[in-house]
Amino acid sequence: MEECIFCRIARGDVPTGIVLEDERFVAFRDIHPKAPQHVLVVPREHILSLNDLGRRPGDIGHLLLQFIVKVAERVGVEESGYRVLTNVGPDAGQEVEHLHFHILGGEDLGDFR
Amino acid sequence: MEECIFCRIARGDVPTGIVLEDERFVAFRDIHPKAPQHVLVVPREHILSLNDLGRRPGDIGHLLLQFIVKVAERVGVEESGYRVLTNVGPDAGQEVEHLHFHILGGEDLGDFR
Repeated sequence: MEECIFCRIARGDVPTGIVLEDERFVAFRDIHPKAPQHVLVVPREHILSLNDLGRRPGDIGHLLLQFIVKVAERVGVEESGYRVLTNVGPDAGQEVEHLHFHILGGEDLGDFR
Repeated sequence: MEECIFCRIARGDVPTGIVLEDERFVAFRDIHPKAPQHVLVVPREHILSLNDLGRRPGDIGHLLLQFIVKVAERVGVEESGYRVLTNVGPDAGQEVEHLHFHILGGEDLGDFR
């Protein structure tokens, strides 16, 4: 059974462009960037999607959103602006079953649909 | 000075299509929907953007993500799939300076850019 690619990246087993990490989350550059700045943020824990996170008690979602803001600062888009999104399930085209947020910025992003 | 439209909606001063609400958050239908299901989620508190939320201690971000999942269930897209996004600042075209997440679903959403 193939192990989850984002678990492997979070563990450091796959060379990738790490932007920021802490004990819970890892931010790295998307290999097919859709904007000048395109970073993925994942929890180290194998949470399947936002649906899965929604069922969990605690504060990991708050820490995740705070971490996303730190990533935006790190790549210099905090003030110029950025879009944060997550895809859940088939209609959204969720490609990896490990919760991940996209951060897009670095140019005028236009409308979101 | 014009008061924030999302504060007014959250207080019930503006008639709108409420989908779900609790003591902290309100979900209502976007007046210019970009998908069969297009719901906005806002905190009742006047938080300016994700940057602003990122500076706050506590667990409101976690509760917000949990609330978003409940909204997805309510409108029937939890399993079919949905996209969640927030725009921050000028490059993302943030139109109202009150933190809001879009929930889109109800059809194949295609790529996100």
